[in-house]
Amino acid sequence: MAKVDLNADLGESFGAYTIGMDSEVLRYITSANVACGFHAGDPVVMKKTLALAKERNTAVGAHPGFPDLQGFGRRNMVISPDEAYAYTVYQVGALAAFAKAAGLSLQHVKPHGAFYNMAAKDAALAEAICQGVKDVDANLILLGLAGSEHIRAAEKVGLKAASEVFADRGYMEDGTLVPRKMEGAVIHDRAFAIERTVRMVKEGVVETLSGKLIPIKADSICVHGDNPDAIGFVKDIREALEQGGVTVTNIADVVG
Amino acid sequence: MAKVDLNADLGESFGAYTIGMDSEVLRYITSANVACGFHAGDPVVMKKTLALAKERNTAVGAHPGFPDLQGFGRRNMVISPDEAYAYTVYQVGALAAFAKAAGLSLQHVKPHGAFYNMAAKDAALAEAICQGVKDVDANLILLGLAGSEHIRAAEKVGLKAASEVFADRGYMEDGTLVPRKMEGAVIHDRAFAIERTVRMVKEGVVETLSGKLIPIKADSICVHGDNPDAIGFVKDIREALEQGGVTVTNIADVVG
Amino acid sequence: MAKVDLNADLGESFGAYTIGMDSEVLRYITSANVACGFHAGDPVVMKKTLALAKERNTAVGAHPGFPDLQGFGRRNMVISPDEAYAYTVYQVGALAAFAKAAGLSLQHVKPHGAFYNMAAKDAALAEAICQGVKDVDANLILLGLAGSEHIRAAEKVGLKAASEVFADRGYMEDGTLVPRKMEGAVIHDRAFAIERTVRMVKEGVVETLSGKLIPIKADSICVHGDNPDAIGFVKDIREALEQGGVTVTNIADVVG
Amino acid sequence: MAKVDLNADLGESFGAYTIGMDSEVLRYITSANVACGFHAGDPVVMKKTLALAKERNTAVGAHPGFPDLQGFGRRNMVISPDEAYAYTVYQVGALAAFAKAAGLSLQHVKPHGAFYNMAAKDAALAEAICQGVKDVDANLILLGLAGSEHIRAAEKVGLKAASEVFADRGYMEDGTLVPRKMEGAVIHDRAFAIERTVRMVKEGVVETLSGKLIPIKADSICVHGDNPDAIGFVKDIREALEQGGVTVTNIADVVG
Repeated sequence: MAKVDLNADLGESFGAYTIGMDSEVLRYITSANVACGFHAGDPVVMKKTLALAKERNTAVGAHPGFPDLQGFGRRNMVISPDEAYAYTVYQVGALAAFAKAAGLSLQHVKPHGAFYNMAAKDAALAEAICQGVKDVDANLILLGLAGSEHIRAAEKVGLKAASEVFADRGYMEDGTLVPRKMEGAVIHDRAFAIERTVRMVKEGVVETLSGKLIPIKADSICVHGDNPDAIGFVKDIREALEQGGVTVTNIADVVG
Repeated sequence: MAKVDLNADLGESFGAYTIGMDSEVLRYITSANVACGFHAGDPVVMKKTLALAKERNTAVGAHPGFPDLQGFGRRNMVISPDEAYAYTVYQVGALAAFAKAAGLSLQHVKPHGAFYNMAAKDAALAEAICQGVKDVDANLILLGLAGSEHIRAAEKVGLKAASEVFADRGYMEDGTLVPRKMEGAVIHDRAFAIERTVRMVKEGVVETLSGKLIPIKADSICVHGDNPDAIGFVKDIREALEQGGVTVTNIADVVG
Repeated sequence: MAKVDLNADLGESFGAYTIGMDSEVLRYITSANVACGFHAGDPVVMKKTLALAKERNTAVGAHPGFPDLQGFGRRNMVISPDEAYAYTVYQVGALAAFAKAAGLSLQHVKPHGAFYNMAAKDAALAEAICQGVKDVDANLILLGLAGSEHIRAAEKVGLKAASEVFADRGYMEDGTLVPRKMEGAVIHDRAFAIERTVRMVKEGVVETLSGKLIPIKADSICVHGDNPDAIGFVKDIREALEQGGVTVTNIADVVG
Repeated sequence: MAKVDLNADLGESFGAYTIGMDSEVLRYITSANVACGFHAGDPVVMKKTLALAKERNTAVGAHPGFPDLQGFGRRNMVISPDEAYAYTVYQVGALAAFAKAAGLSLQHVKPHGAFYNMAAKDAALAEAICQGVKDVDANLILLGLAGSEHIRAAEKVGLKAASEVFADRGYMEDGTLVPRKMEGAVIHDRAFAIERTVRMVKEGVVETLSGKLIPIKADSICVHGDNPDAIGFVKDIREALEQGGVTVTNIADVVG
């Protein structure tokens, strides 16, 4: 039977600043990517977020990003593989310590924003990240863009990988996402978005912008929890998956 | 036979900025306190510093500080025990990850600068730090000011503690350091400083500013490696200790 | 006729993070304290905030804080007068540049949070801040706690000062605020809070926690705009003042 | 008679960290680019640096950079024109305030590192920076790479521009610098570097990597002051220029 994980970014608040409806989205997701203090999150927030995830019994992973709080980690930065390695070890280690303190262990690592996007295309960056993850804990699973350099790097380095798909994004024929500047980058018709997401999981295919069917590996679906509307979408995706006979479970169960 | 550790702060460089003659001071010390990115250090520096310590076979510990790079962690900040706990877990966890990646394990934790000084006097802050250390790794040793609240907190929390003394600082009758603003805060006569340091280790006593002899526990001596002069002083202290029949060895050996 | 200013903190958002209902509170206040990027705010936010204030024709001032974004500038930090001076010049200068770019000029400077509270009690810190303000622009008005060291420092340095009062805080017999840990620190009865605020402005007196009437100078009233409830309170205060025959106008008009 | 400016980056220290031999290089240069706290420098350093420049009677300018202290502003970051504008206004404004406090006025603005390099090629980024400079002070001179988009943007925006050349870098036929990864990027023969620098100034031409002579505008020469060797090179360049009959004077004199 088909299985898939639903993942969302959590713990993105910082000091007096709040982002995300963490409690609400935790009702529907199976894996939480927890910010580690570089692009979002801070030590106090990390502690609280893990406590919340533990209470809900949701699997947790590290969500390392660029050291760019002002840009929320969404701005491309040209860093060296050495820096990428060290930024990964640092952030994963910091979160792993909170996990240990809470009696949890980390399940996965998913880089954030621009760090994720750049690693999807840049093999050297991707390998540095994967090596960093492995050196901290060889049992961690790398969650990266389906079909990307990042997945290949995980395999090369000897790290378990999980392939991520997006419910509301268009795909090119080569399996990459339609760039945000192009028409068709975002799928606004929710019913259609949900239908194609279920298909990605059950049939392993997705229809590209050009209308062609291509194969795609969908171990985990990226969802968002920053507003009530997004929460409603997550709820609907989960229901559609379950009604379609898909088991919604965490990453380790899917790829383990 | 008397034993004592010599500890110094390492890995305080940041990005393009260099502080400290790490390679040189590593010749003489037995334990290195490695900065964790809050008051000094960065992920790339942390990796390099552990590689260097490993090469020299020097024991390493985490040196967490206040989030105040601009003040080098030397400015008092009023933070809550919750924040102190979380800042400790975060920084110790980050460094522990680099240690693991390098095939090392951490020996101890010594808070830095104002974090150290405030914890020496504030029981709640000290306990929060000790609990954080214990929750990351219950085998870590807390290195704190001899006779301070910090040492008491470690015992209360159930953490092994090592008592630190200063070679070139004056002591009050209650065992605290002579405040920097007072005459007698710093001992400028090096020969005398070395002589009293050896006495602290061998006889467990120190002469206070007022001329009284008080008991003091000297598991580790704080030394510095930021300039050639300081390095020379460390070398002289080590030689005097060894000539006095003291075994200079790392913290775990001293308090283990 | 009695005159008073209503001031609130604006532009406290940072990057992807939003704090404050700036547009709403701007309907009722006459002076806006704009965060300058240390404890809150960032360059893009500063530009937008000044554009908004200009549109509403509200007087603007700089709101410099400690370099502590994680603590929102609310944590005491022990900095030197030299640092206080430089932090003030830097932040006031940065905001003044955005004001100039927008065709505005700054009216006042009000330090934020712990910087404000510490300056209220510490004459050296207060003088350093006032000197910094004066050196950037000798026409700026210092907005500080009524009856505090900060007001005295402004006078000593030769800077115009405006005295600030709080609508919902209790007062001690010496004119200082009832510490937050004490019973009576915050006045929860809104009608009573408003009544005593109007009295402070019109009669120049306030009833202390002990029941004694003391003189108080009320050039400006501190209000908040971070939630709908706070906005309602501001609206009510303004209406009560105007119904009481008080002219609500900006700081320069009040003390000019 | 030919005139040229010698400029160097100053005030790059941060907190306890020191970079640069500012006092030494000030003997030879005519314009100082002062870091503004984003990629280097801090408020206390900015104040000291302006005092030093004032003492030596050296013209000062702002040296705004990316908000990337860890990367010293040398890492490319993809920021929007809005962000570039706001980062420029903020940093120039902050330094202008210290200048005013010191009784100085700013002469020029030269973006730092990756901000400079990206603006040399990206017209939108360059225009945003120039507009920011102009909005703070329309009399400021933009110091940018000779023949670059940055110079064109200054002219478009209506800002005076000064063209910068490099003594020790190779040039391509289109007037751009030989990329650092290519052979010939850096000229290691100092005598030759000095000879061609004098020629750039006096004859307005430079020999490219391919051996072709191309025209180049040399209003200012970029030099460095971070080590004794660099200082010696600056001294030699200045002597060679003066012996060659070139007047070494500040940017405003050259392009004014």
